[in-house]
Amino acid sequence: VRDIVQKNFAGVLEAAKTKKHKRICVAAAHDEDTLRVVIEAKRLGLASSTLIGDKEKMWQVARKLNTDISDFEIIKEPDIIKSARLAVDMVSSGHADILMKGIMQTADIMRVVLNKETGLRGSGLLSHVGIMEVQSYDRLIFMSDAGLNIAPDLQKKAAILQNAVDASIALGNEKPNVAILSALELVNPDIPSTLDAAALCKMADRGQIKNCVVDGPLALDNAISLIAARHKGINSPVAGQTDVFIVPNMEAGNILYKSLVFFSGAKSCGIIMGARVPMVVTSRADSFESKLNSIAVAMLVSK
Amino acid sequence: VRDIVQKNFAGVLEAAKTKKHKRICVAAAHDEDTLRVVIEAKRLGLASSTLIGDKEKMWQVARKLNTDISDFEIIKEPDIIKSARLAVDMVSSGHADILMKGIMQTADIMRVVLNKETGLRGSGLLSHVGIMEVQSYDRLIFMSDAGLNIAPDLQKKAAILQNAVDASIALGNEKPNVAILSALELVNPDIPSTLDAAALCKMADRGQIKNCVVDGPLALDNAISLIAARHKGINSPVAGQTDVFIVPNMEAGNILYKSLVFFSGAKSCGIIMGARVPMVVTSRADSFESKLNSIAVAMLVSK
Repeated sequence: VRDIVQKNFAGVLEAAKTKKHKRICVAAAHDEDTLRVVIEAKRLGLASSTLIGDKEKMWQVARKLNTDISDFEIIKEPDIIKSARLAVDMVSSGHADILMKGIMQTADIMRVVLNKETGLRGSGLLSHVGIMEVQSYDRLIFMSDAGLNIAPDLQKKAAILQNAVDASIALGNEKPNVAILSALELVNPDIPSTLDAAALCKMADRGQIKNCVVDGPLALDNAISLIAARHKGINSPVAGQTDVFIVPNMEAGNILYKSLVFFSGAKSCGIIMGARVPMVVTSRADSFESKLNSIAVAMLVSK
Repeated sequence: VRDIVQKNFAGVLEAAKTKKHKRICVAAAHDEDTLRVVIEAKRLGLASSTLIGDKEKMWQVARKLNTDISDFEIIKEPDIIKSARLAVDMVSSGHADILMKGIMQTADIMRVVLNKETGLRGSGLLSHVGIMEVQSYDRLIFMSDAGLNIAPDLQKKAAILQNAVDASIALGNEKPNVAILSALELVNPDIPSTLDAAALCKMADRGQIKNCVVDGPLALDNAISLIAARHKGINSPVAGQTDVFIVPNMEAGNILYKSLVFFSGAKSCGIIMGARVPMVVTSRADSFESKLNSIAVAMLVSK
């Protein structure tokens, strides 16, 4: 049975519920926001969690939340870096399907994940994929890389693109449309992101990038509006129906992500792709709903 | 009498109406979209226009619009580059207060404007200032540079900042709040825009940038939301009340501008600051309303 294309997070959550039960391994789980969301994920029948961290604090939080966490697998390791190492080891050994960051710095868990001998590197690059639902657009937006790779070169952009495409495919989109964003639609030697865009298109032509339709450079309006593209005389197979947006640099991505959330009221979540398992690395500022959506997306991405 | 701070374009238009009548000089004015907006500007009592270009085509358009343009000063010069030169000469000699581009490439008129001997350069850098009105924010957004300077260095960013601040002041804001946007709020040597941000703040401390309150680096959410800033533990004088947004590069600016217009339904307009007169350089994709707003802003900026 072919998966249906998920157009919003309600659909993503429902789709995740139909999947095989998964196990999350949480590093530094002794945090109210983190525990609330993994408790909810368990209640909804999505995933069980192994909680690693300061066991006493976990129980303090559970009592505060009037919740019993005795049916969670809990591993006592108050040292944050050690808890990250333990979590990565457990995922490595196949004990869990998804790695999740609790109350620790992203940079700290990334260092453990990226360790060449004991980490979770796969064959590719790790990259952040933001997923947004905004009222004024008819499909989910996959955006990358707005969180991890600062100024990726062409090779890294190709990997970033493929990771984002893989996430979109995991959410039911058989052949995602990809727009390589820049400030304009013309190739301009003074604007390196337009050269990268042209090269990425040719890489897709040659099969170096797979399972998607790629076009760029495109300004954002041409990617999301067929009328805007036609107005500019742009004939693009992705115009008005772009699923995946590759941003020229992390700053542009971060600003677009925040603009959608704060100016357009978008719902959002994010995961890190490219490691041997999907990673949920939410930040304190993310809402409960956003964190739960990240888990649901990670479940669909998880093999 | 101190000007009131304009919080939306309706106010900007009303304020422009109270100003002394201005004269616009239009290069390559033989274009329906251009003529419609200068006719409306005249009808509203904002500004008269000198129309330079293909006179026959102008009259063709006028007939199509059922309008009489015999009360406009019209100069016949069908050659587009020559019409731009003529327009710049007329502005130079004090015949007009505002330069406007009709149906010609921005690059072509910019070349004429930037000519060191015969152009309109002032002491500073030319930069684009986008002005946006979005329902979810309590004030006008001044954004720069999303259109002209591709990857400005620190010195150029300082000039871009000052130009945008000057535009905000012209719209009644005595001491604008300026956020230097990046992907995060911390100074990070791997992200040059965060270093520029720190340097710009110090330049403001030392009086190298004037008449504004500057803070950065800031992520967009921290600039527009006091709650988001507090959540991150950021204590910033501009958080939640930023007027002027300096983007890290043109791509980020263009993407933010388009995001506001297409995802958030923002009203927008733009002018070019830094020449001896304000310039209205709208694009074909801009709405009638947007072009009229650009004229109104240029009038308020015009000395």
